[in-house]
Amino acid sequence: MSSALQDRLFAEIDAISLIDPHTHINPHAPAASNLAEILGYHYYTELAHSAGMPREAIEEPHLSPRQKAVRLVQYLEPLENTIQYSWLIELAQRLIGWPHERLTPANWETLYDACEACMQQPDWAEQVLARSKLEAVFLTNDFDDPLEGFDTRRYVPCLRTDDLVFHLARPGVRERLVRASGEEVHTSEGLRRAIGRLFERFCSRGARACAISLPPDFSPERVEPQAADRALQLVCRHGGEPAARDADVQTACQVLARFVFWTLAEYCTEFRLPFDLMIGVNRGVYAGGVYQGQDLYDSRVSLIQYRQLFNAFPRVTFPISVLASVTNQELASYAWIFPNVVAHGHWWYSNTPSLIERDAAHRLEAVPQTKLIAYYSDMYKLEFALPKFAMYKRVLARILAERFVIERGWSEERALLLARRILRDNVERIFYAES
Amino acid sequence: MSSALQDRLFAEIDAISLIDPHTHINPHAPAASNLAEILGYHYYTELAHSAGMPREAIEEPHLSPRQKAVRLVQYLEPLENTIQYSWLIELAQRLIGWPHERLTPANWETLYDACEACMQQPDWAEQVLARSKLEAVFLTNDFDDPLEGFDTRRYVPCLRTDDLVFHLARPGVRERLVRASGEEVHTSEGLRRAIGRLFERFCSRGARACAISLPPDFSPERVEPQAADRALQLVCRHGGEPAARDADVQTACQVLARFVFWTLAEYCTEFRLPFDLMIGVNRGVYAGGVYQGQDLYDSRVSLIQYRQLFNAFPRVTFPISVLASVTNQELASYAWIFPNVVAHGHWWYSNTPSLIERDAAHRLEAVPQTKLIAYYSDMYKLEFALPKFAMYKRVLARILAERFVIERGWSEERALLLARRILRDNVERIFYAES
Amino acid sequence: MSSALQDRLFAEIDAISLIDPHTHINPHAPAASNLAEILGYHYYTELAHSAGMPREAIEEPHLSPRQKAVRLVQYLEPLENTIQYSWLIELAQRLIGWPHERLTPANWETLYDACEACMQQPDWAEQVLARSKLEAVFLTNDFDDPLEGFDTRRYVPCLRTDDLVFHLARPGVRERLVRASGEEVHTSEGLRRAIGRLFERFCSRGARACAISLPPDFSPERVEPQAADRALQLVCRHGGEPAARDADVQTACQVLARFVFWTLAEYCTEFRLPFDLMIGVNRGVYAGGVYQGQDLYDSRVSLIQYRQLFNAFPRVTFPISVLASVTNQELASYAWIFPNVVAHGHWWYSNTPSLIERDAAHRLEAVPQTKLIAYYSDMYKLEFALPKFAMYKRVLARILAERFVIERGWSEERALLLARRILRDNVERIFYAES
Repeated sequence: MSSALQDRLFAEIDAISLIDPHTHINPHAPAASNLAEILGYHYYTELAHSAGMPREAIEEPHLSPRQKAVRLVQYLEPLENTIQYSWLIELAQRLIGWPHERLTPANWETLYDACEACMQQPDWAEQVLARSKLEAVFLTNDFDDPLEGFDTRRYVPCLRTDDLVFHLARPGVRERLVRASGEEVHTSEGLRRAIGRLFERFCSRGARACAISLPPDFSPERVEPQAADRALQLVCRHGGEPAARDADVQTACQVLARFVFWTLAEYCTEFRLPFDLMIGVNRGVYAGGVYQGQDLYDSRVSLIQYRQLFNAFPRVTFPISVLASVTNQELASYAWIFPNVVAHGHWWYSNTPSLIERDAAHRLEAVPQTKLIAYYSDMYKLEFALPKFAMYKRVLARILAERFVIERGWSEERALLLARRILRDNVERIFYAES
Repeated sequence: MSSALQDRLFAEIDAISLIDPHTHINPHAPAASNLAEILGYHYYTELAHSAGMPREAIEEPHLSPRQKAVRLVQYLEPLENTIQYSWLIELAQRLIGWPHERLTPANWETLYDACEACMQQPDWAEQVLARSKLEAVFLTNDFDDPLEGFDTRRYVPCLRTDDLVFHLARPGVRERLVRASGEEVHTSEGLRRAIGRLFERFCSRGARACAISLPPDFSPERVEPQAADRALQLVCRHGGEPAARDADVQTACQVLARFVFWTLAEYCTEFRLPFDLMIGVNRGVYAGGVYQGQDLYDSRVSLIQYRQLFNAFPRVTFPISVLASVTNQELASYAWIFPNVVAHGHWWYSNTPSLIERDAAHRLEAVPQTKLIAYYSDMYKLEFALPKFAMYKRVLARILAERFVIERGWSEERALLLARRILRDNVERIFYAES
Repeated sequence: MSSALQDRLFAEIDAISLIDPHTHINPHAPAASNLAEILGYHYYTELAHSAGMPREAIEEPHLSPRQKAVRLVQYLEPLENTIQYSWLIELAQRLIGWPHERLTPANWETLYDACEACMQQPDWAEQVLARSKLEAVFLTNDFDDPLEGFDTRRYVPCLRTDDLVFHLARPGVRERLVRASGEEVHTSEGLRRAIGRLFERFCSRGARACAISLPPDFSPERVEPQAADRALQLVCRHGGEPAARDADVQTACQVLARFVFWTLAEYCTEFRLPFDLMIGVNRGVYAGGVYQGQDLYDSRVSLIQYRQLFNAFPRVTFPISVLASVTNQELASYAWIFPNVVAHGHWWYSNTPSLIERDAAHRLEAVPQTKLIAYYSDMYKLEFALPKFAMYKRVLARILAERFVIERGWSEERALLLARRILRDNVERIFYAES
């Protein structure tokens, strides 16, 4: 598989400067400060737990970073085959200069110390960005994030709206909304005004997207304000998230979710903001799992559920991520037909080489090249952009080598222009359209 | 990937004379008469629209072919990565002799003129058939098509039944049926007789298949004549397609759809006609789309929905196409178990190389070779058979090279016999069984 | 694809001694006694029937083995492309020493006679085990199997529970349960005790797993004993399997199925027995099919249906097989998150090379290596382990060559350790944990 052609293409692709269009970076602490923060990425904690590590081993209070690291390292051996483990080793080798192929109880301290030496440098985050060829990274900001104290051109705000759509039944969420917006939210009209205030603030701070993750059974629909008012009253009276037996409150929550979601789409039109939809996750499926390691999915989801939405908002661009690879063909087909649907990255459980290869190959043969956003890292710490993008770029180099240069007789230059388009140009065109 | 072995196999496969078992050719104008008719294929109009071309740009009335062509050409650049674009270029190069790799606002007129020169030749359609190695193409005829004025051995009639099954609520459809059959259709018995008349006429004109496309939620069942009578009365009284609020009329339409579908299967037994089922399309999902560019699908469909049908009609052969690649494994499994289920081609949204490779590879390893119909073009103009079949044949050559010659140690001759069987012999055996 | 690297890896993988963790071997007649028993494997009878052989041709009473064999051979030609046919030829060549590539009406008798000569040897089963490098094979035992008269270390008992969960409405099943357990089963408590007796007996005879196959719509839940009591009474009163119109009895059967299933999981905790779940089969879909050739599936199934189960039984290991390849990503993801979920083999309709390659490649990149059980043969006669495992090992060798040695730069030794782990070590660790 690996070949001179593929290696040449990879080298050129690897030189492209990137904007990472979806991450969970904290702009006030973008890089890791020690190995424990690297190993604390949920991929390692959840895989280690799945392979036998008790949750308590790492979630015990007052663990020092060194203690947490050594405990995790003890459980890494079963993960050595996974692609996630390969990110860790590539990161250690290429960013830290650590020379080994395995992280073991015998050698972990050398990596711990090497990390510490690197990460204590005051410009470490900038070094990581430079070596990763990242010019900017998009954030995932709570709706009441003050968005202050960082360079919003480097760390680009995005309005994350899961809480607004799915957790308005929690009094704490409504209080945060009142505080962030300065509006009362007892009525659908107040709610609408409050959401408008959020858009104003985010856009004034350079926000480039509104974003949300959605469960597989969600199906957006327009809701009449009167129905939203009734639902809001019922939910407020109930005073908390409803239990299974509170069927009427649950229904009210669903009405409210649809109302808020639709309202977000309306504001995306008004503020010319793309609306990132990340479709398919069920939260908290494994209640005993580690932090951030409890979510799974039901792959029986269809974009037909979004039919009304796509038709109702022709001026909103919807960059769409799907959690299960089986949804990829629908994503490609909907992006091929709907002008406002764009295929976005390779998300979470589908972010592994064999699935990326399948999914990206199909997108590249069936969707206009202007409607593909190749990849985002989804990272919590800057160090992970390098190995995750490298994984993607290797797959892309192979697809271009085999399916375009060899099979279709394209020149390498032409293939590289396509790579540049989907990795870089489209991010600019889609998210930086002048508003 | 490309290799001497694969190239040798392709060359031999490419020499096989074909019968195209499903197209939308108009036998009175089988070939294109200008470039606008080539570019007007829905793949180009819908992809160009999806990439930014307003629908009005090409659907404005009174556009000359040249105007339509130039407008489309302006929007083709974003499509250059797609496989559909490669069909266009291969067609231009191999049928028209046009030498370029891209169709642009700078060179489009040379192709327009070259097309015109070719297509004005009185024997152009015959030339295209000969160069495409096509001996016959199956049509998709409305039930009231007079089927006259063309050579039905070359252009083979097939009875398309979507209108009968799904649109009998439209008074115009019922009137067409009365006119075409000479029977009244106020009762289920009249309806049955009318459909019988259609089969008689089609079979007397050499029809080789009954065909229908089906939405993902359709599930055929036998309906009692009394229930069909009641449904028919309700639908006729209502006088048009029911709105969402007319729940009882909608139910009646569903009963009627099942009754007519089941009746078609009964006549297929009687007239020994294969019943092509094209499973999975939702019509009109994107109402704002270009002509023929509005349909999509819900990939959550199962052949278990056809369980009663396959059991009830052991003497009818069902060549089955599935719209979503995820249904391919079920198609292979059902063809492996049910004697009357045959896997048919690679349809529409699944008709791209990466999906064909996956789907065909699995069919070839799991379904008896007598039960595979390799490919059909689905074309509206003869020019598209050549590049579409070429795409399929390249994939087939790779599968045979890698999975049969190399992995299983087959001789090239043996692999080519398999190719010939599924590309040609099975079309004859399945559709030309003496009735 | 085939390469020196891949061949080297295959040779090493092929030398690993195996324990086959799921078969349908009859320990009293583990090997075939003639060619008819080989050709009688449902893969050949159902594919031959699907390709045109009348069921009666082989299910007619009083056929001699020779008659049955010749009849089947007449219908094998259409199957020559299938991977199942390649098992037959590889078996004939490698175990019987038969030199041909095709089994035809002209040469079948030479194979029949050669089989007879081999199979009459008293140590034939031991020879087959040795040449197949099989140390032990797991059985599929009815709950009332006496488990006597064979070496349970060689032929390892497993408690198959489909009848208990899904067919307790049949008086014959309840009678067998009473007889096998010595307990009355008029109440949920009696039922629970009876099932406990089965576990005691099976575990005292060295059982290593409890196993069940499940339809796609099954969704386990805890049932209150009172509800189970009411359901049991209704079912006993009804006295047989309910028809479609007996809605209340059908509901009672579902309650009972859930109660028994949950009870089995409780005993698996108590007896420390892994619970093999084989998810996704619909029985009897094609009623006119040959023996064992009537089952199919609905690929619309999700492991989210097992959410309660996986959370409720953290101490039970669930080796899970899925019938449709589309479920493979969920299986990998659930095994990645849930400590008690293990990916198990490549089952039935997904047991073909192109699907194994896709499914195994994803498992190997995303699931800890300790949580993968590579393969089982599912065979009814020992002769089939060799070609079926060989098919799997060839695919595994290719995945390791391409995705680990070449792409990730692994040494061959490291790749082979991974192979050994999933093919052998995990079977021991998961099923032979000291109880």
